Amino acid sequence: MKVGGKHYRTIYPVEDGQFVEVIDQTRLPHEFVLMRLACLDDAVRAISDMIVRGAPLIGATGAYGMALALRGQATTDSLEAARARLVAARPTAVNLRWAVDEIVAAVAPLPVDERAAAAFRCAAELCDEDVASCAAIGEHGKQILAELARKNPGRPINVLTHCNAGWLATVDFGTALAPIYKAHDAGIPVHVWVDETRPRNQGASLTAWELGEHGVPHTVIADNAGGHLMQHGQVDACIVGSDRTTANGDVCNKVGTYLKALAAKDCGVPFYAALTGPTIDWELSDGVAQIPIEERSADEVRFMRGRTPSGDLVKVDILPEASKAANPAFDVTPARLVTGIISERGVCPATAEGLRRLYPEI
Amino acid sequence: MKVGGKHYRTIYPVEDGQFVEVIDQTRLPHEFVLMRLACLDDAVRAISDMIVRGAPLIGATGAYGMALALRGQATTDSLEAARARLVAARPTAVNLRWAVDEIVAAVAPLPVDERAAAAFRCAAELCDEDVASCAAIGEHGKQILAELARKNPGRPINVLTHCNAGWLATVDFGTALAPIYKAHDAGIPVHVWVDETRPRNQGASLTAWELGEHGVPHTVIADNAGGHLMQHGQVDACIVGSDRTTANGDVCNKVGTYLKALAAKDCGVPFYAALTGPTIDWELSDGVAQIPIEERSADEVRFMRGRTPSGDLVKVDILPEASKAANPAFDVTPARLVTGIISERGVCPATAEGLRRLYPEI
Repeated sequence: MKVGGKHYRTIYPVEDGQFVEVIDQTRLPHEFVLMRLACLDDAVRAISDMIVRGAPLIGATGAYGMALALRGQATTDSLEAARARLVAARPTAVNLRWAVDEIVAAVAPLPVDERAAAAFRCAAELCDEDVASCAAIGEHGKQILAELARKNPGRPINVLTHCNAGWLATVDFGTALAPIYKAHDAGIPVHVWVDETRPRNQGASLTAWELGEHGVPHTVIADNAGGHLMQHGQVDACIVGSDRTTANGDVCNKVGTYLKALAAKDCGVPFYAALTGPTIDWELSDGVAQIPIEERSADEVRFMRGRTPSGDLVKVDILPEASKAANPAFDVTPARLVTGIISERGVCPATAEGLRRLYPEI
Repeated sequence: MKVGGKHYRTIYPVEDGQFVEVIDQTRLPHEFVLMRLACLDDAVRAISDMIVRGAPLIGATGAYGMALALRGQATTDSLEAARARLVAARPTAVNLRWAVDEIVAAVAPLPVDERAAAAFRCAAELCDEDVASCAAIGEHGKQILAELARKNPGRPINVLTHCNAGWLATVDFGTALAPIYKAHDAGIPVHVWVDETRPRNQGASLTAWELGEHGVPHTVIADNAGGHLMQHGQVDACIVGSDRTTANGDVCNKVGTYLKALAAKDCGVPFYAALTGPTIDWELSDGVAQIPIEERSADEVRFMRGRTPSGDLVKVDILPEASKAANPAFDVTPARLVTGIISERGVCPATAEGLRRLYPEI
């Protein structure tokens, strides 16, 4: 999407593949800084230091990381070594492992001197596929927003979103934000309520930034505010992303999603999860019972990053010195609270039958 | 309650009434600083700068502010002038107006030279009454926690609370935290999940601090986390305060309370509001429709206050420069989501009949 009027993807090769460029997301929203990855080490660091984040973008960075590694040395030993280092950079990122393995499968059968070029081609294909999936989610979701706009003429449609499932988390368009971008670009008036999304603030720092740069009207709210807005008719739909979805439509997403889904149900507001097929775990049928929730560092609750009046980026401590904090990073929204799933294949009810109709081959 | 092992109230006269001492709550949780109010100006500033906050404590400060003013000049003109200045310090604080008027009513009939001493006596009585009310809430609520402890032997009872309805908001004990202090002091093992309570962070900075100083085990969580904890049986009860309660038991409290009440209902966790009789507005019967919600400054969402590694207290900007923020400060939890009201008179269902049984004289 656009930054300062110019179109960007979150990752792309530059100077004939000598470098791969990414946005340093740790410096958003205060500074827009592009970073060049020149070698395997750079790619590993970009992933482990969260310069890049979001499952699809981490996968794309892994794929390009393989290509950069093979340009140095493309023997089967170095292929294996690069794979191991990248996968270890974020051990729980399923998408990273998958993308890196795609590269291995594509280049392993080739002669050593053809591997690097093939890896770059394959990484570019993976990126294009991700963009196509997200664009398709956008088109399907846009229909929902267009319908809401038809029913509420003369005013913008208010969409509430939680966390960042935008283009910054993918290669372009995003998942939850793709319908919003597609609607906005098609002239459907949309306004987005952006949940701050404590404790890592991905809504306030990433979602608000990317919507603003693309020109989408939006307002940041504390995570506490969404229920009140829904009670008073100020939200027409909620759209969130999903890190993992069960075969029956339970949605695991950033912690706090469940609270918004409860309010949406209570207030009669439609609640959608936007996701790509690979997010669905067909083995699972009870998200609350079966999906283990990552407990992240208490420091994410204790420290807040921001800009001082003099422009420095600092981390400040906001808790009493002696207090502990807990930080469950995700929660599970039961399918009964989800109005529909928006995937690259279309929109379906959050049920086993609904999902199986979209993915009959599984 | 205790700070550093010593018992404090939030406001009390010192040196024979020459000064009134309060805790500078703007410097919590990082610094415990007592501040002496010597005159009307000091009291007005303490209220308007939020050195003191919480309806009962603001009222008590108003009462002592009148006493300090009358020690300087006790004519009927200066009585009226002091009243006007104090009420204007926080124009929406109903409790402030009430407390100041109590002083006026008590001293106006007296000779000028007796008014100051009478105002100090009356302010002290108002404080004692507030402490007695909160202590009574504590005793009634303690029974609920004792019962939960009996049913769950061998482990602490986990109580979730939102915002700060603790002793720092009152003269002592608090409302929502009073049952917790009474239970803790009686040897009932209690652990408190403290909602951070964005955007002003009263949970992280005030509730966590006061629980910690009194020795009550607690853990700070992002406002987003409570639903997940309830889904997984990690919350035995929620207890929150109330800024305004309708005659049928709808509870207006800090924004985000409604989301926790929805999760509690969905997960079968009892949800209580602790409050004193004067919080009940007997004219109202539909909180969502009838209670206007204060929209506070967007700067409360944009800026976060905390301590840098070098120990300085600073405010940092956490939003993109071009993004707007909205800040509805309260929300309404419908009575159907409230298990019970804990007041100084006892515990009752959140219904018109339940409340009227506790307050038959109304």
